[in-house]
Amino acid sequence: MADARLNEISASETARRIAQGETTARAVVEACLEQVARRETEVMAFEWLDADGARRAADAIDARDTARHLPIAGACFGVKDIIDTADMPTGYGSPIHAGHRPGADAACVALSRKGGGIALGKTVTTEFANVHPGRTRNPHDAQRTPGGSSSGSAAAVAAMMVPLALGTQTTSSTIRPASFCGVIGFVPTQGAVSVSGVRAAAGSLDRIGLFARSVDEIALYLDVLRGIPRAEAPSRRTFAPRIGLCADFLAERMDPGTQDGLLRLARRLDEAGAAVADCAVPADFARLTDEHRWVSSFEFVRNFAYEIENHWERISTTLREGRISHGLACTHDQYRTARALAAAAQARIDEMFGSHDVLLAASAAGEAPVGTATGDFAFCALWTMLGVPAISLPLMAGASGLPVGAQLLARPGDEALLLAAAAWIMAQRDD
Amino acid sequence: MADARLNEISASETARRIAQGETTARAVVEACLEQVARRETEVMAFEWLDADGARRAADAIDARDTARHLPIAGACFGVKDIIDTADMPTGYGSPIHAGHRPGADAACVALSRKGGGIALGKTVTTEFANVHPGRTRNPHDAQRTPGGSSSGSAAAVAAMMVPLALGTQTTSSTIRPASFCGVIGFVPTQGAVSVSGVRAAAGSLDRIGLFARSVDEIALYLDVLRGIPRAEAPSRRTFAPRIGLCADFLAERMDPGTQDGLLRLARRLDEAGAAVADCAVPADFARLTDEHRWVSSFEFVRNFAYEIENHWERISTTLREGRISHGLACTHDQYRTARALAAAAQARIDEMFGSHDVLLAASAAGEAPVGTATGDFAFCALWTMLGVPAISLPLMAGASGLPVGAQLLARPGDEALLLAAAAWIMAQRDD
Repeated sequence: MADARLNEISASETARRIAQGETTARAVVEACLEQVARRETEVMAFEWLDADGARRAADAIDARDTARHLPIAGACFGVKDIIDTADMPTGYGSPIHAGHRPGADAACVALSRKGGGIALGKTVTTEFANVHPGRTRNPHDAQRTPGGSSSGSAAAVAAMMVPLALGTQTTSSTIRPASFCGVIGFVPTQGAVSVSGVRAAAGSLDRIGLFARSVDEIALYLDVLRGIPRAEAPSRRTFAPRIGLCADFLAERMDPGTQDGLLRLARRLDEAGAAVADCAVPADFARLTDEHRWVSSFEFVRNFAYEIENHWERISTTLREGRISHGLACTHDQYRTARALAAAAQARIDEMFGSHDVLLAASAAGEAPVGTATGDFAFCALWTMLGVPAISLPLMAGASGLPVGAQLLARPGDEALLLAAAAWIMAQRDD
Repeated sequence: MADARLNEISASETARRIAQGETTARAVVEACLEQVARRETEVMAFEWLDADGARRAADAIDARDTARHLPIAGACFGVKDIIDTADMPTGYGSPIHAGHRPGADAACVALSRKGGGIALGKTVTTEFANVHPGRTRNPHDAQRTPGGSSSGSAAAVAAMMVPLALGTQTTSSTIRPASFCGVIGFVPTQGAVSVSGVRAAAGSLDRIGLFARSVDEIALYLDVLRGIPRAEAPSRRTFAPRIGLCADFLAERMDPGTQDGLLRLARRLDEAGAAVADCAVPADFARLTDEHRWVSSFEFVRNFAYEIENHWERISTTLREGRISHGLACTHDQYRTARALAAAAQARIDEMFGSHDVLLAASAAGEAPVGTATGDFAFCALWTMLGVPAISLPLMAGASGLPVGAQLLARPGDEALLLAAAAWIMAQRDD
């Protein structure tokens, strides 16, 4: 009976139980595989499942005392299929690369394994982490999108198949699916976690994304991915944060009710002891939401020059007429201007944050839309251009009662502060 | 007779002759292959030669009128073996990955081919683009190092095997071998040319490097790699630049004669009409030469976590006891401090440049040392930490008459100005 819920416990609790001999990594893997068997037909989160490999990895952990004390010992994780794995095919969500076998694990996968994590399989990504959807469905409602592009990773965590998953974000590909699937999604400061071994979409914007069901797990996993021992991790004393509320930002693109939800959440946090004040996004910052397109598209068509030149007919019409068409139309001047505007805003980031520790904004327009389209990208584009760390917390609900994320943002390098603030905010809900 | 020297003509002249029907891409390829046959036994620049693939690519260019008018039509290029190629093995200079077949061309390779370039083969790299040397020798003196880590690319261009070659630089891996081999080496502003498909050493420092025998070819090739048509390229009107002379910087690490050579060159340029003035490198900038180690090592051990965890015994002792040992010893605080110092200096870059268009410094300590060790890295570490565009021009000579490079640097984004200044400086020599 106890084993039946091993797939539902957190990565930190998994590691604790294994270290203390209360359970085994093998039992955890079996529980996760059973959950996959229960839900996968409906959710379709995995592109490739490596049950035998996961069992072998679990047995190797159970066999060594040092391995049982690793920070995420026995925690199963999913790997977005845009990320290289040496022992599983990596198809980048495209028929062009179906069955491709990379020569090495990406840095984030190797570091996860080094930390005691067990790769359960590759999760479904949209085509080249762009917008053409994969087959994954929202675990809360199979008629709806899980969001993209890290669709399978968000859905696998939401469906209790794994406690942790790796995604990426070039626009909104971690925060949005986390919001739609009702889990926590996190991206660190641009450049803080290695993207080596991740197929690049736009190098100046690409980041590793993390999915989990608690803030504590995100903090733990982040240290594993930075390759730093807990002793070196910045302290994260939970505290009532000073919050800048960006409720008006992109309000015109929100579903009815999302802005109200954000205002209600802010009021609740204020009453609980946080200092909440309105924060207006300056016009030259807001402009980056549109400018994002030029940076991401210009870089995308160069990064996929091989596929565009050699496999044009196997690229989806969506991608050809969207990202690629924009990228081919973008001039060098447009691109340089967009990057210069982002750099100028980055240099003035303190102006926007002012005395706030964190900013609070919507993670997405509202709950997951019906259908397969992955949803409005706009709610992350500015923050992505700024390269600031972001976390989506499942604190709101849409008209159908489905989850909507609240997005929390901090200054570059302030991961510890962001996670401490997020932990405090989540604790208010749990009370 | 005319065909016998087709391997010696520039990429731009190659493209011009092919466009005008004066020669064929096939003839150019044969000339380059003949030169490889003449010199390769001694120089050992290539890890893999694809004669048949190059011939097929040449025939495809000769068969299509549009292809014959591409910007670098028929120009052969070498590809450092740290860079992925879909049709040639890519071993990253390590026995761990010998024979590995990537699923796609790196962006820089695909864009070179799109521009009409013909990949002649993969060039020798040091192990994982670090310091453990490959087998390449200096084309001017087989007893000496060609420099590293882009050893084969620099040597292949110097030995007239190819007019163009792709390298990378994380410390000094393009500028130093260019200096030792007497060719032109160039790195663009950090982030200006995609590194997608290049095995990452340290993501915040890695850049694509270009090798050629003239500044004009570098400019042409840079546009191909940025994927921008000539019409969109910033204009490069040659002009007598205002030069800040950094002759004292790292003078204590120079060979006898290098500083004098730099001073003589500066005097000559001043007399020719350039405005030359001394430029002192501020102490907090100079400090970055040492801080570079922490950034490159911290990131390296995370990027190679797969190899370190799974193939430790196949990593060279040099690499284990050097870069990897430093990276494992580096704390998160040391790393963050080093990156913060670099960011602070980047924000004050105008202070150092002042009214100068470009800075002039040594590319290396002196001429290529005897032996296989790739030489002192220090002469590029600061500039790499700043992410500024740099070019090495073969304008000086050492005690044995072997080439020594003069390094020219510009502000981030000022590639056009840098190349225009470099062209003017080279023209003074040619007079």
